[in-house]
Amino acid sequence: MFQINENYLKLPGSYLFSTVGKKEREYAAANPNKKVIRLSIGDVTQPLAPVIIDALHGAVDEMGKAETFRGYGPDLGYEFLRTAIAENDYRARGCDIAADEIFISDGAKSDSGNIQEIFGPDNKIAVCDPVYPVYVDTNVMAGRTGVYDAARETWSDVIYMPCTQENGFAPLLPKQTPDIIYLCFPNNPTGSAVTKARLQEWVDYANKTGAVIIYDAAYEAYISEPDVPHSIYECRGARECAIELRSFSKNAGFTGTRLGFTVIPKEIKSGDISLHSLWARRHGTKFNGAPYIIQRAGEACYTAEGKAQLKEQIDYYMRNAKYISEGLKSAGYFVSGGVNAPYIWLKTPNQMSSWKFFDYLLETANVVGTPGSGFGPSGEGYFRLTAFGSYENTVEAIERIKKL
Amino acid sequence: MFQINENYLKLPGSYLFSTVGKKEREYAAANPNKKVIRLSIGDVTQPLAPVIIDALHGAVDEMGKAETFRGYGPDLGYEFLRTAIAENDYRARGCDIAADEIFISDGAKSDSGNIQEIFGPDNKIAVCDPVYPVYVDTNVMAGRTGVYDAARETWSDVIYMPCTQENGFAPLLPKQTPDIIYLCFPNNPTGSAVTKARLQEWVDYANKTGAVIIYDAAYEAYISEPDVPHSIYECRGARECAIELRSFSKNAGFTGTRLGFTVIPKEIKSGDISLHSLWARRHGTKFNGAPYIIQRAGEACYTAEGKAQLKEQIDYYMRNAKYISEGLKSAGYFVSGGVNAPYIWLKTPNQMSSWKFFDYLLETANVVGTPGSGFGPSGEGYFRLTAFGSYENTVEAIERIKKL
Repeated sequence: MFQINENYLKLPGSYLFSTVGKKEREYAAANPNKKVIRLSIGDVTQPLAPVIIDALHGAVDEMGKAETFRGYGPDLGYEFLRTAIAENDYRARGCDIAADEIFISDGAKSDSGNIQEIFGPDNKIAVCDPVYPVYVDTNVMAGRTGVYDAARETWSDVIYMPCTQENGFAPLLPKQTPDIIYLCFPNNPTGSAVTKARLQEWVDYANKTGAVIIYDAAYEAYISEPDVPHSIYECRGARECAIELRSFSKNAGFTGTRLGFTVIPKEIKSGDISLHSLWARRHGTKFNGAPYIIQRAGEACYTAEGKAQLKEQIDYYMRNAKYISEGLKSAGYFVSGGVNAPYIWLKTPNQMSSWKFFDYLLETANVVGTPGSGFGPSGEGYFRLTAFGSYENTVEAIERIKKL
Repeated sequence: MFQINENYLKLPGSYLFSTVGKKEREYAAANPNKKVIRLSIGDVTQPLAPVIIDALHGAVDEMGKAETFRGYGPDLGYEFLRTAIAENDYRARGCDIAADEIFISDGAKSDSGNIQEIFGPDNKIAVCDPVYPVYVDTNVMAGRTGVYDAARETWSDVIYMPCTQENGFAPLLPKQTPDIIYLCFPNNPTGSAVTKARLQEWVDYANKTGAVIIYDAAYEAYISEPDVPHSIYECRGARECAIELRSFSKNAGFTGTRLGFTVIPKEIKSGDISLHSLWARRHGTKFNGAPYIIQRAGEACYTAEGKAQLKEQIDYYMRNAKYISEGLKSAGYFVSGGVNAPYIWLKTPNQMSSWKFFDYLLETANVVGTPGSGFGPSGEGYFRLTAFGSYENTVEAIERIKKL
């Protein structure tokens, strides 16, 4: 008789965004005359840039002709894309990353979920609190997180690193020593970023303790301040301890087009075994590459035209971020984020709980956001708004909130 | 200090197709005047059908306009594609499969590698011998296969089901009872198929013993005989015990375009827990859907025009299969497969080993095939040729072999 993976049963049932969606639908059904504006979504809304559309059409035409048709691609990604990434995302920023240390994938969600597989069962993970749920949930599925405390909404074997107003929403080095440290900067959900000097402390800590950092840089394109690093490899010693996850989703609007990559420098080793070789084996065994036409679209992002068009998109979203941030501040809210990230993290007024403020905002301003407590216990009393809506809707939502 | 997944180190190092490629390149470099023909590849060569190209262009245009742009899609796949599959691949064949039992993915390699994750560590797997290496390797990575015997090239905790000339390359029910049974029909590498009556025996056996069948039907479009089932759900009771894996790679030439799906009927349960719910959770946590434009391409395969164009492609490859099969038979070879599958499985002459025949064929006929022993010990003394080349090259290769 077959047996299931019992770890799956430990996962808490309800999911943040499904609850948000359900409440929104119920409100809209009960109030058909109200125009509800969603500043809750972490999904882009601007169409793909013209240079990407052209690249897609060109690659589709190639697939229709025998002489240019492409079957199975290289498991680890096409050389043209890996080279463009190494050159533009890394060497241009002074980071020493080679094309063959870059693994093309179908997106950072897959990579951030699958990467834990190359580690043994007894590693202790450390995560920020609040945090993107995939890091923890995939370790739960692998049996690495111990027992769930439903009241505190934490796992016994996970090290939580609170990100609070006191520490500027950047975690302090943990007291207990972890084996694997998940960091995401610019951060989802808080929108916070760290300076290169602060990130260097994490790299030094990891090298001192023998930990690996899994660095999620999915939002690096939104960085506007010069002392904030776009890659962890801007720090000394990161080649010895850091894996970096990247995505085309938010940088180039690929949420529905699916493309990302993971960087594993060859120096990260346990004894003689490099993590690079393990991930290559995983990729080669359980994955068959991203579609050729999508990889050509990725390549187009690195042309001069592509860079210009994508900068325009980022600027569009960051104009929204600025509008939200300044509007809320002028209305007396405590607000962080929105400067190096498309997320605005606000403190609820009058010590309302995150969910209470959700209901209040939905009912009085007809604006939907995301309760901070849904991302972890330290998110309680906070609320996330995103800059991914249209400018017109964003302005209208903020004007409504200002009038409350 | 982080620890790696030690199971990865158990995987034998060399990989069949890399050795084949290396030998081919070395021969070509040493003999630049010889025209080497590859009948070794399991990759398609015909361009995507016009109806698919049109669908891709149409979907790309949608992504370029704000009003039709698509961001994150449903984790489990777009309804338009799941409905087309349920209707055309299942209900049209009398199989009772609902759209919400179909999970769209980026291909059958990912699914066949990932599916083992929803099962516990102590399940015993049974595989055909010879076999597609991914089934076993991914169970090795999960620590489910015991100790490797390098001399026999087998794992202590895996049940091998030999597929030999004596049993018509269709396995007998195993003596030891497995928990998870991997079956692939039409088969890679042997090209064999089973009748519905024979497959029914497997379904009955699984239901009697409480085993799950993971049924890989990636080659179903190549079936030409009426009593060979296209889906395991043509069998009674399969909804209680069988997961089916499907691919657009060989049916529609998507090897470089990446699309597949897995079917899990809601009845397959362990206690109260359905495998459907576990796979949904895995999909939702570690995957973010296949690209929208690729799913539209998949949908186009099910139009009347799409079906006609894809039938032409299959016919093209199966004309090659027939030419190979008949040519080898006329030259005195024992040959199977090639009737319901694009693979021809031949017995090496004079009891040559698979690798010895590989060298012989490369050196005397300048034809590259795949040694059967690379797929498992029972493949020793056999050799795989594929029908995926061009017709002209296929004819030339067979004429050369006939002259030996």
